[in-house]
Amino acid sequence: MRAVTFRGTHQVAVDEIPEPTILEGADAVVRVQRAAICGSDLHLYHGTIPGILPGMTIGHEFVGTVESVGSQVQYLKSGDRVVGTFHIGCGGCPACRRGDFHQCSQGGVLGYGIAFGNLAGSQADFVRIPHADINLRIIPPSLDWDRALFCGDILTTAFGAVKNAGVQPGETVAVIGCGPVGLMVVISALVQGAGRVVAIDRLTERTKRAESLGAVPLSSEEKNPISAINQLTQGEGADVVIEAVGGSKTLEMAFQLVRGGGRISAIGVTAEDTLAYPLMSSLTKDITFRIGVANIHRDIDETLALVTYGRIDPTVIISHHLPLSRAPEGYRLFAERQAQKVLLALD
Amino acid sequence: MRAVTFRGTHQVAVDEIPEPTILEGADAVVRVQRAAICGSDLHLYHGTIPGILPGMTIGHEFVGTVESVGSQVQYLKSGDRVVGTFHIGCGGCPACRRGDFHQCSQGGVLGYGIAFGNLAGSQADFVRIPHADINLRIIPPSLDWDRALFCGDILTTAFGAVKNAGVQPGETVAVIGCGPVGLMVVISALVQGAGRVVAIDRLTERTKRAESLGAVPLSSEEKNPISAINQLTQGEGADVVIEAVGGSKTLEMAFQLVRGGGRISAIGVTAEDTLAYPLMSSLTKDITFRIGVANIHRDIDETLALVTYGRIDPTVIISHHLPLSRAPEGYRLFAERQAQKVLLALD
Amino acid sequence: MRAVTFRGTHQVAVDEIPEPTILEGADAVVRVQRAAICGSDLHLYHGTIPGILPGMTIGHEFVGTVESVGSQVQYLKSGDRVVGTFHIGCGGCPACRRGDFHQCSQGGVLGYGIAFGNLAGSQADFVRIPHADINLRIIPPSLDWDRALFCGDILTTAFGAVKNAGVQPGETVAVIGCGPVGLMVVISALVQGAGRVVAIDRLTERTKRAESLGAVPLSSEEKNPISAINQLTQGEGADVVIEAVGGSKTLEMAFQLVRGGGRISAIGVTAEDTLAYPLMSSLTKDITFRIGVANIHRDIDETLALVTYGRIDPTVIISHHLPLSRAPEGYRLFAERQAQKVLLALD
Amino acid sequence: MRAVTFRGTHQVAVDEIPEPTILEGADAVVRVQRAAICGSDLHLYHGTIPGILPGMTIGHEFVGTVESVGSQVQYLKSGDRVVGTFHIGCGGCPACRRGDFHQCSQGGVLGYGIAFGNLAGSQADFVRIPHADINLRIIPPSLDWDRALFCGDILTTAFGAVKNAGVQPGETVAVIGCGPVGLMVVISALVQGAGRVVAIDRLTERTKRAESLGAVPLSSEEKNPISAINQLTQGEGADVVIEAVGGSKTLEMAFQLVRGGGRISAIGVTAEDTLAYPLMSSLTKDITFRIGVANIHRDIDETLALVTYGRIDPTVIISHHLPLSRAPEGYRLFAERQAQKVLLALD
Repeated sequence: MRAVTFRGTHQVAVDEIPEPTILEGADAVVRVQRAAICGSDLHLYHGTIPGILPGMTIGHEFVGTVESVGSQVQYLKSGDRVVGTFHIGCGGCPACRRGDFHQCSQGGVLGYGIAFGNLAGSQADFVRIPHADINLRIIPPSLDWDRALFCGDILTTAFGAVKNAGVQPGETVAVIGCGPVGLMVVISALVQGAGRVVAIDRLTERTKRAESLGAVPLSSEEKNPISAINQLTQGEGADVVIEAVGGSKTLEMAFQLVRGGGRISAIGVTAEDTLAYPLMSSLTKDITFRIGVANIHRDIDETLALVTYGRIDPTVIISHHLPLSRAPEGYRLFAERQAQKVLLALD
Repeated sequence: MRAVTFRGTHQVAVDEIPEPTILEGADAVVRVQRAAICGSDLHLYHGTIPGILPGMTIGHEFVGTVESVGSQVQYLKSGDRVVGTFHIGCGGCPACRRGDFHQCSQGGVLGYGIAFGNLAGSQADFVRIPHADINLRIIPPSLDWDRALFCGDILTTAFGAVKNAGVQPGETVAVIGCGPVGLMVVISALVQGAGRVVAIDRLTERTKRAESLGAVPLSSEEKNPISAINQLTQGEGADVVIEAVGGSKTLEMAFQLVRGGGRISAIGVTAEDTLAYPLMSSLTKDITFRIGVANIHRDIDETLALVTYGRIDPTVIISHHLPLSRAPEGYRLFAERQAQKVLLALD
Repeated sequence: MRAVTFRGTHQVAVDEIPEPTILEGADAVVRVQRAAICGSDLHLYHGTIPGILPGMTIGHEFVGTVESVGSQVQYLKSGDRVVGTFHIGCGGCPACRRGDFHQCSQGGVLGYGIAFGNLAGSQADFVRIPHADINLRIIPPSLDWDRALFCGDILTTAFGAVKNAGVQPGETVAVIGCGPVGLMVVISALVQGAGRVVAIDRLTERTKRAESLGAVPLSSEEKNPISAINQLTQGEGADVVIEAVGGSKTLEMAFQLVRGGGRISAIGVTAEDTLAYPLMSSLTKDITFRIGVANIHRDIDETLALVTYGRIDPTVIISHHLPLSRAPEGYRLFAERQAQKVLLALD
Repeated sequence: MRAVTFRGTHQVAVDEIPEPTILEGADAVVRVQRAAICGSDLHLYHGTIPGILPGMTIGHEFVGTVESVGSQVQYLKSGDRVVGTFHIGCGGCPACRRGDFHQCSQGGVLGYGIAFGNLAGSQADFVRIPHADINLRIIPPSLDWDRALFCGDILTTAFGAVKNAGVQPGETVAVIGCGPVGLMVVISALVQGAGRVVAIDRLTERTKRAESLGAVPLSSEEKNPISAINQLTQGEGADVVIEAVGGSKTLEMAFQLVRGGGRISAIGVTAEDTLAYPLMSSLTKDITFRIGVANIHRDIDETLALVTYGRIDPTVIISHHLPLSRAPEGYRLFAERQAQKVLLALD
C-alpha cells in the first residue's frame, strides 16, 4: 500500500509498504479515506521530534472505513465509517479509567515516533488502530468525510482548550494566533457561549479570516494588543485568553491580556522547556493557567454532534485538497506557510 | 404622569396619576423610556391574579433613565441608563444572600398586586424601584433601549430556564411552544451550545418563526411530536426539554419527549395546582424536573453582554411598537394573539 | 453450586443448580465471596415485581473473585478480586456512550427477572457477568470484602442521590427515612461537604442510629418535621431533601421541607405510578426534583476510594452475617424489620 | 483607644491613638473583640512590604461588635456581632459585580499600607470598615468569637484554595507545608470530600499535627516526598497539590507530585517575581496551575456554616491567647516560630 514516510529533515516521500494486519485482539485496521497534515506534523518535518526514524509512516488526522477487526473488538465491525483520535488510549490503566485518555500509560500518538508509542501513522492506505473500541468513533450517516476528519484532532483540540478555560456565557475571549488552530478556537469559543472573541495575530490578513468567522480582529501590526484589549474591556482585561501559537512571547502576552481572576489556556505546542512565569503578579491577580495536550476522547462526541447539526463547519480552514501522491508538496506548502490546512484524499 | 392602570377584567386604561417619590433611602425613581407587555401581564388582564386592585399601575418590563436616588443608593446616580429586573430583591435576607433573589422574603414583582409586594408597575412615565442598587442594571453605552429591555425579563427568563437544564455542547433541546418565550428559548439554547433545538408548536406558522432563528421546526398539526423526536434522535429522546406553554398536556408531553437521564425545565406559567407526575417511569428513566420563576439577577449580566456584543438579538419577537397612550390596544391585540410582543414607547 | 432461588411470594430457598459458564466473549464468571440482601430484593420477596419466575436465582449485591473470563475481556483476569455493579451496561449503546449506564438499552439488573434482562442473580456460588470489563471493578488490595460490597449498590446509590442534589459545602440536608439507605445518605452527605444532615424517621430508635453517624436526629413521633426544620433553619427550609422511603406521603413532605430554590432527590423505590406534584407552589419556589435509579458506574470509583481510605465505613449498617445456607432466614428477618442489613458469606 | 502599630522592621507597639469615626456613608465602626496575627503580618513585620509607614495600625483578622454605622449602611446595625473579611471590596466595580471581590479596583487590605488602600488595621479597640454591608458578615448566634474569627481569613483562604483545585470526592490531595495555613488546608480538603490528604513538611513534629487532623503525615526529613507520593498512588501522583509554603522549591516540588491531568493550587505568599515554570512537561502532563490571593467573600458563608455546625474546628491551630497589650510579644513568638497562631483578646 501507499504510505507517507519520513526520510529526514524536510523530506517525506510516498512509499509502497506492506499493509498492516491485526496484531492484537483489540486492534482494527482502517482503510483511510482522508488524512490531514497537522501543525504538529511540521515539528516532525522540521526534525525537532526525537525518535522519528527514517522510513516511519507519519500522520495522525484521518477518517476511513473499518476494514477488519480483532477478536476482542466489541462495538465496531467491518464497513463502519470512523474517525480516529490522534492519541491512543488503552482504556484500562488508571488514567484512562478516570477519563484522562491523553495521559494513558500505555498509549501514544499515531505516526509520532518511538517516544510516542512507536505507532505507524495514518497518512497511508491503511492504518492499524490499537484498542479500536476506545480510539475510533463512528461517524453519523449524514456527516461527510471532510467535516468528520477535524473532530479527531484540530477542532476538538481547540474546542477542548476553550472548555478547559471554563468560558461563561457573554465572556470576552482573546485568542492569540489566527492559524488553523486559532480559527478553530474562534469557532469553538462562540459555540460555547462567548460574548465576543478577539482574534489577535501579527498579520492583518490572518485576523480577517478570524473576522469572517465572527471574531473581532486585532492585528498587532496595526495596534498594540494590550492597549486594544484594555480599551475594549474598559481596562478590565479579557476573561479568558487562549494561546494558540506556542512561543514564550505570546505566553507572556497572555498574562498581560487576562483580567484579574481570569484564565489562560495554552494550546500552542512549545519548544521551550521553561517559562518565566509571572508569579508575583499572578498571585495578586489570581490567574489560572493550563497548558496541555488535548484529551480528544473527552470532547469528540460533542464536536461530532455540533458538526453534524451544522453548528460548526471546520472545513473553512481547508486551503488545499491533494491526492495522497502529492503529500510531499503538501508538507512543503504548509511548512512555507503557503497552505493553511492540507487534506489528503486517498480514494 | 401617565400610567397604565388595571380597571377590571379585560380593562386597562391610561390614567393621569401623581409621580412616585423616593420613599426609602435605597429607592430610585426611574423615568421610563420603554415598557413591554409581558405574557404574565395577560394573566392579570384576564383577571386571574388575586390581589390586583382597580386603579393599580401595572407592568414590569422596562428600561429608562434614573431620575433621582435615595440617600442610601451607592452605585447609581441620576442620568444612568438602566434596565430593571421584573422581580425585586432586598439584597439582605437569607435568600438574597445566597443569590436567590427570586426567593427574596421581602421582595415582589412590579405591578403585580398586593400578593407580590404591592409595588406600582412600570408602564408609566416614572416608576419607583426599591433597593435600586440590587434591582437596576446599568445599560452599556452601545446598547439601545429596545435590545436592553428584554434582559429584564423575557430573554433572561428563557435564558435562565435553559441554564437550569444544564445544556451540554451538542445536545438536542426540544422546546414546547413557539410563542415569544419559546423563541427566546431557541436563541438562548443555541448560544449556550445546543447542537440543535427542535421547536414544537401546534401552529406551523409559529414553528416557522423558530426556524428562522435556527431551530428545527416541528408542527404538531403536521407530525406527532413524540414520534418525530424519536426519529430525530434514533429513539433516544431529547437530552433536554423546555416547556414554554404552561399546561398539563404540554408538561405530560415533556416527559414523553425526554430521554433517560434527561432534564425538563418548565417555564410556562401554569394555572394548575398539581400535576399527575409520572413517578414510576421517571424513577426508571432518572429524570430531573425543574419548574420555577426566573432569577433574573443571576443571569442578567450574561444576557446583557450577549446582546451588547450582538450574539443575541431579542428584538426579533417585537410585532408592535406603540406609544404609551395606545397601551389598551396593545393589551387587546396581545390577548387576541394578534400581537407577538408589544413595546410601549414613552419618549 | 448453591443458589438462592425464588419460589413464590415470601418463599426463597437455597438450591443446588448448575454453575454458570461463559456464554459471550465479554462475559466473566465470578466466584462470589459475599452477597447482601438489598431492600429492593424485598419487593421481589413480596411478589410485587412482575417477571420473577419460580426457580430464578436472585440477588445483585456481591463481591468475589474472577473465576474465568471470555475471549473479549481485556482488563480482567482470573483471580482478580472484584465488586459488581447491580445494574449491567453494555458499554456500546448511546446511553452507555454518554455515561448513562443505568439507561443502557441492552442492560438489566442481576437476579431481577425477565423485565430486567433475565439475568441470574448473585446470591450463589458463582455468577455470570456480561460485559465484565464494564460491570466489574477491581477491589484495591487493602480493602476487605465487606467494605467493598456496599460500593456496588447501596452506598453508591445513596452517594449518587446526594450528588444528584448538588450539595454545596455547609448546606443543610434533610434525609427522610433512617433505614439502611437513609443511613448511607447521612454518611454520603457529610463526606460531600454538607454542613449538617437532619435525619428524619418515625422511630426515635432509628434516628439514633443516624445520630451516631453524625446526623441531627429528628423523630416524627416526637416532633413535627416541618416545624422542626423550619426552626432549625430560621424558617428557610432545607437546602436539599433526600427522600429515602418511597411513599407518596414522604414525597409530599419533601416538598414542604425544602427551601425556595432547593433540590429534592428521591431515592426510595416507589410502588405508585403517579404523584400529585405541587406544581403551583414549585413554580413559585423554583424547586428541582429528581427521581431515578442509581448510575453506579458513574460514582463507584469515588466510593471505592472513600471506603479504601477510611473516609466512609458502610459496614456500620450490617446487623447480620449469615452463611448462604441461612439466606431464607435472612430474607425473613429483613422482611420483618428485625434485620437492618444482612450479609451472606459464601466462603 | 489602643492600637498595634508598626514602628519599623521587627518593631511593633501598642499605642494610644484616636478612635476611628464614620467617614463615608457606607462605613461601619466595629468594636474589636478578638484579633489574630496572620502569617502575612509577618511579611510586614520583617519589613518586606513597601508602603507600611511607621505609626500605621496593622492587622486584618478580627471579629467584633458593630459600634456605629453610616447613613448608607442597609443590612447592619449597632450591636451586631460580625466577622470581617481581610480584604475590602466596594461592591460596585466590574470586578465586585462579577463576584471577584479580591480584585476590587477600589479595595485594599486592612492594615497593609498605602499600596493596599491605606486602611487602618484591626488590631485595635476599634476599626473602621468601608462598604460595611459588603465586608462584614453577621456571626450566627451559636458561634463563639474564636471560631468565627478564622472565617475572615486563614480558614477561608485555605478552603478557597482547595475549592480552586476542584477536588472530587475520593481524590488524593497533597498539601506542602504544615504551618497554620497548611493545617487549615487539611481540614478544608477533608470536608470537601478528599479521599485522603497527604501532609508534607520538613519537620516530623509539624506533620504530626496534620495527622491529628486526619492527614497522612509525610515528613521530608524521613522520606523523599516524590517517591513517597508515587508509592502511595501506584506511580500516578497526587490528583491535587496545594502549595502552602510560598517558595520556589516547594512550587517545583508541586509539579513533581501532581499526576497527569492534575491541578496545583498555590496559596503560599511568595517573595519571588517569577518561577521557572516547567512548560514542556506541563504540556505533556496537562497541568492546571492557579496562584492567587483568596476571595473571602465568595466562600465565607460556607465556612461560617461549616464552623457553626461543628464540621470544622479551626481553633485547633491556636497556640497562644494573649491580651492586646502583649501583641509585641505575640509577633516576636510568631516570627521566631515559637507560636503557631496568636489570638489577641481585647475584652
